[in-house]
Amino acid sequence: MLYFNCDYMEGAHPEILKRLQETNLEQTVGYGEDPYCESAKKKIRKACGFPEAAVFFLIGGTQTNAAVIKSMLRPYEGVIAAESGHINVHEAGAIETGGHKVLALPASLGKLEAGTLCRYLEGFFRDPSASHMVQPGMVYISHPTEYGTLYAPEELKALRAVCTRYGLPLYLDGARLGYGLAAGEGVLTLPQIAECCDAFYIGGTKVGALFGEAVVFPRTAPKGFFTLMKQQGAVLAKGRLLGLQFDTLFTDGLYLRISAHAIEMAMRLKEILTGAGCPLWLGSPTNQQFVILDSGKRAALAGKVGYEVWEEREDGSAVARFAASWATKEEDLLALQEALSSVRGS
Amino acid sequence: MLYFNCDYMEGAHPEILKRLQETNLEQTVGYGEDPYCESAKKKIRKACGFPEAAVFFLIGGTQTNAAVIKSMLRPYEGVIAAESGHINVHEAGAIETGGHKVLALPASLGKLEAGTLCRYLEGFFRDPSASHMVQPGMVYISHPTEYGTLYAPEELKALRAVCTRYGLPLYLDGARLGYGLAAGEGVLTLPQIAECCDAFYIGGTKVGALFGEAVVFPRTAPKGFFTLMKQQGAVLAKGRLLGLQFDTLFTDGLYLRISAHAIEMAMRLKEILTGAGCPLWLGSPTNQQFVILDSGKRAALAGKVGYEVWEEREDGSAVARFAASWATKEEDLLALQEALSSVRGS
Amino acid sequence: MLYFNCDYMEGAHPEILKRLQETNLEQTVGYGEDPYCESAKKKIRKACGFPEAAVFFLIGGTQTNAAVIKSMLRPYEGVIAAESGHINVHEAGAIETGGHKVLALPASLGKLEAGTLCRYLEGFFRDPSASHMVQPGMVYISHPTEYGTLYAPEELKALRAVCTRYGLPLYLDGARLGYGLAAGEGVLTLPQIAECCDAFYIGGTKVGALFGEAVVFPRTAPKGFFTLMKQQGAVLAKGRLLGLQFDTLFTDGLYLRISAHAIEMAMRLKEILTGAGCPLWLGSPTNQQFVILDSGKRAALAGKVGYEVWEEREDGSAVARFAASWATKEEDLLALQEALSSVRGS
Amino acid sequence: MLYFNCDYMEGAHPEILKRLQETNLEQTVGYGEDPYCESAKKKIRKACGFPEAAVFFLIGGTQTNAAVIKSMLRPYEGVIAAESGHINVHEAGAIETGGHKVLALPASLGKLEAGTLCRYLEGFFRDPSASHMVQPGMVYISHPTEYGTLYAPEELKALRAVCTRYGLPLYLDGARLGYGLAAGEGVLTLPQIAECCDAFYIGGTKVGALFGEAVVFPRTAPKGFFTLMKQQGAVLAKGRLLGLQFDTLFTDGLYLRISAHAIEMAMRLKEILTGAGCPLWLGSPTNQQFVILDSGKRAALAGKVGYEVWEEREDGSAVARFAASWATKEEDLLALQEALSSVRGS
Repeated sequence: MLYFNCDYMEGAHPEILKRLQETNLEQTVGYGEDPYCESAKKKIRKACGFPEAAVFFLIGGTQTNAAVIKSMLRPYEGVIAAESGHINVHEAGAIETGGHKVLALPASLGKLEAGTLCRYLEGFFRDPSASHMVQPGMVYISHPTEYGTLYAPEELKALRAVCTRYGLPLYLDGARLGYGLAAGEGVLTLPQIAECCDAFYIGGTKVGALFGEAVVFPRTAPKGFFTLMKQQGAVLAKGRLLGLQFDTLFTDGLYLRISAHAIEMAMRLKEILTGAGCPLWLGSPTNQQFVILDSGKRAALAGKVGYEVWEEREDGSAVARFAASWATKEEDLLALQEALSSVRGS
Repeated sequence: MLYFNCDYMEGAHPEILKRLQETNLEQTVGYGEDPYCESAKKKIRKACGFPEAAVFFLIGGTQTNAAVIKSMLRPYEGVIAAESGHINVHEAGAIETGGHKVLALPASLGKLEAGTLCRYLEGFFRDPSASHMVQPGMVYISHPTEYGTLYAPEELKALRAVCTRYGLPLYLDGARLGYGLAAGEGVLTLPQIAECCDAFYIGGTKVGALFGEAVVFPRTAPKGFFTLMKQQGAVLAKGRLLGLQFDTLFTDGLYLRISAHAIEMAMRLKEILTGAGCPLWLGSPTNQQFVILDSGKRAALAGKVGYEVWEEREDGSAVARFAASWATKEEDLLALQEALSSVRGS
Repeated sequence: MLYFNCDYMEGAHPEILKRLQETNLEQTVGYGEDPYCESAKKKIRKACGFPEAAVFFLIGGTQTNAAVIKSMLRPYEGVIAAESGHINVHEAGAIETGGHKVLALPASLGKLEAGTLCRYLEGFFRDPSASHMVQPGMVYISHPTEYGTLYAPEELKALRAVCTRYGLPLYLDGARLGYGLAAGEGVLTLPQIAECCDAFYIGGTKVGALFGEAVVFPRTAPKGFFTLMKQQGAVLAKGRLLGLQFDTLFTDGLYLRISAHAIEMAMRLKEILTGAGCPLWLGSPTNQQFVILDSGKRAALAGKVGYEVWEEREDGSAVARFAASWATKEEDLLALQEALSSVRGS
Repeated sequence: MLYFNCDYMEGAHPEILKRLQETNLEQTVGYGEDPYCESAKKKIRKACGFPEAAVFFLIGGTQTNAAVIKSMLRPYEGVIAAESGHINVHEAGAIETGGHKVLALPASLGKLEAGTLCRYLEGFFRDPSASHMVQPGMVYISHPTEYGTLYAPEELKALRAVCTRYGLPLYLDGARLGYGLAAGEGVLTLPQIAECCDAFYIGGTKVGALFGEAVVFPRTAPKGFFTLMKQQGAVLAKGRLLGLQFDTLFTDGLYLRISAHAIEMAMRLKEILTGAGCPLWLGSPTNQQFVILDSGKRAALAGKVGYEVWEEREDGSAVARFAASWATKEEDLLALQEALSSVRGS
């Protein structure tokens, strides 16, 4: 059985396992004070073009979002997000358990548009009952979004401009950031993201690491962020495991290289799927491809190829997500092609 | 200047002040253990037709909603509400500061429909990622709604049926409950509400009291509810002030009588407004009337008659809320009529 | 039956009821934006000697403490308090439900000493694991304390000095503040308190009001404090009820006058109790008197005079609290004396 | 340089790394639904003697404590713990950020005694103001404690009996559980712990794993515990990493074997330290040894041997913690002995 369900089905890039092995019996102090974390932070700061950036390593995306957002809001403030944003849907209320409302706005293929944000804020501050409402305190976006779409550089700048006008910090969830950075020409670069955002994280879990996310505050970190992480249960005792992984990913461009491989595989995947008569549900330049599978194709793939059902439809067809990753192999694609070749579209 | 802005601009019904005066120097124990609270509880239980109901007195609506909802949810659960529900809009995140997400569903003139609820729940439990999402833990409705509309008895029963099917408690926010109970023939009665709901509150603040809301759990109160109230800062030291007010309101039908007066005034208000050429924005059988005021009428009322601007429009007109209450006097209506008579509609 | 159990057994000072009556049918806007609140704020600012102070009115002590403390701490910070502090014992976890630890330090008759505070802070910041611990974020004291004791002016200044050294705001819970201000010569004055504290509240509930507490931030209010109050369910719809009460209390020195009466009564109470052979458990210059009642005296008072049992002892005696208040009458004292006169001490 | 500072300075037992390597490119579903987790759960259930136990894998101790405690308390309840308990001191307020007070009781060398617990509970429920206080909702203990001490089987049974009498669940924090299980004859066994506790966790991070803790609910898991974990940011995307580690540790008794090695090393450590004239500060049968180092010995070890300073003393001596672990080697002990041999005790 072959799985395209998501981008976290394998372990880690072999280079990471190798370094874990090599350093396994070394002794280092805990909680991220070790030399591997230090080295990784330096490399990340350099890649972002912000040599003074504060960098922290956390274990997973939900705890990262919860800690960063909690650190940036006052108790009566909420975080603005696209309705489809991960924090609004699939984090089991991690933001609310921290006391904050997610102020969900309509999105367009997962993207929060500057115009939408601006109209909401204008309306909010004109409302005579505004002081009885959760105050907008920051803006959350994901890049790539949950639909595999990307903010163009000018779109991010436009969001930044609105944020600046209203004094709101901008935070970018980069759970799949590599797959955005490697998605072809003209896409947002790390320095551009660092320039526009007050905080963002570089996802490791879905991009080659066993686990781990690197939060970057390009200018200043919120006061007491380490203690807040600890309070949220987001500090790893053997912090070096995170440092080592990010140090490896940011050595010799590994993070971008494996991301570029995933994109290449994803584009082939798209070709294979559309070539086999599966209409695109939406066009994504990143590692996630959404297509419509009719019942014949679903039957053909059953028991051979796994994918994520995004939406069941009444006629037996489904919106399906196929994800490539750093670990996807050409032979997997050929096997998929083979499995699909046995059917004619309905 | 005359105000129709809302239903909490005056103090209390004179009978309440009289009893506060009469009992002022009596000594009673604090925190709601006094005989006035006991007497009020008995009368409320009787009015609801649930002689074993648990009744608690709190000070205001926001703290009541926060305490009741917190008492009924587990940490990973959220409360389903109409998008326009008070807890979702105008309580400054009181539910979220307690750790819970408001699961907002589309509403129809402020009302959550059983069909909408049912479709949402079906979809939720069919979703393969449901365990990563905030679990629906209870249902909140307001009656009258924020738009002055009412659930018909069969509509409430339909909601109850869906709740029962999914094992969800149903909670009714009755901030303006009196104005619903007195809104004509065939409207929901207290015993019907008690029959259908696991918890509800009878609003005092907007219906003749200085302040105060009476929470009713017709069958069983959540364990430790008093301590939870205390934790939420919702226990009044001189609890008898609440008992006395509700005892007065539930003596000789005062609560219903003053509500009926408000409805009578509201119907006259509607006549006067529509008679003067102000189109209804929505038809409400309760004490709140929503009309469209054109710029000429707004000018005519300026400095003479206050109302709540619900929505400013580009052409200078506005959606306006006029509220009648237990305290509205006939002469006020005549003065409004007079003020409006000086203009011709645009 | 006569009660000395506490200082919130009666309603309000008659002058307050009178003004409620007079203004009952006036219309004012809600939520504290009315002229009565404005007038009361001006008088309080003047009494404190801080004409620019921010003043807010809340309903009760627990919600006041919860809102003020939440507004002054970051998420990973705690509030330092005496072990016996009200927030640490009798508020049902209101601070913790807001996410903050109460960092309880040993106290001396309810008072937190500057030396104790200083040693704790020195130790904390010297601890190599400090970043894994709740950070001290502010200091809470009560004045009068829960034992009726008072901080001398130099004691408050010493606490202030430690706070300043460590950058911690100082907050004073004045639930019974009047009874401290009126407790004889040389006690702390309102301007001295305002000078030393970043925030404090002037208690109304226990000092002549039906309910209500006035929070004073002598220099600057925390951003968004009104919305935070709303979120905590601590905004009264008919805010003028609070304004009116404090306006009355701060007109012609009523607050101090009724407090002085309570102190006079308390001193008489102390004389009567000790004169009847009840040893003082601790000496308090304020309205609460703690004595030891032997079983004979308890029997003599049973069914005639109420008091609060602070501690049951094995020999049948008890530590008892007798509280005088603005409402205590001379004849009550005589009745107590009479009841005690019938026994001989054991 | 050689470090005895703690038991989490190395990576993982080599067998674990080997299995991570072997399975690295396998594809499995995420979030703990994979066969490795299933296998590990079975082995743990068997080792505990509760074949129906619910087992969950989390990443670290703080998040484990926070999730378990939150799942077992109602909002107005607190968790009873020894004053020195990890949740009360070194988890940065993780319990309070979840809304709950830690009800800290005096401890004896880190242990909460049944008598202390019983007296507290008796006093609490006798207190007439109990309903205004945080309600005791569960009991937390650590085993081994933060001081390396152990509950004897009869001590745990006595605690259990008190818990049962008061209807309180008992939860055991086993961050270093292996070192307790292997600490000689007559110590508590896993089945005894499972018998006495409603929940406990088997620590991996400090006992041979890279990271990870296994929570066991011997009888029933709290409803919705997975979603609660997710909300707390405590679900690992590649859940199999946890399953694999615990599967390895619970295969062929590895967990106990490596723990026994640590105990052997710790006993040799104690001999070496006391033999060199360092008085024991407290006697521990587990992997942590606390001794007093005089200034001469501290100078001798400086730059050669690391340890944790528990307490600085005025005479230049210190209470020092030396920890052995699964990774401690004989040659390390010899090197320590050598370093100490160069000094004479002062």
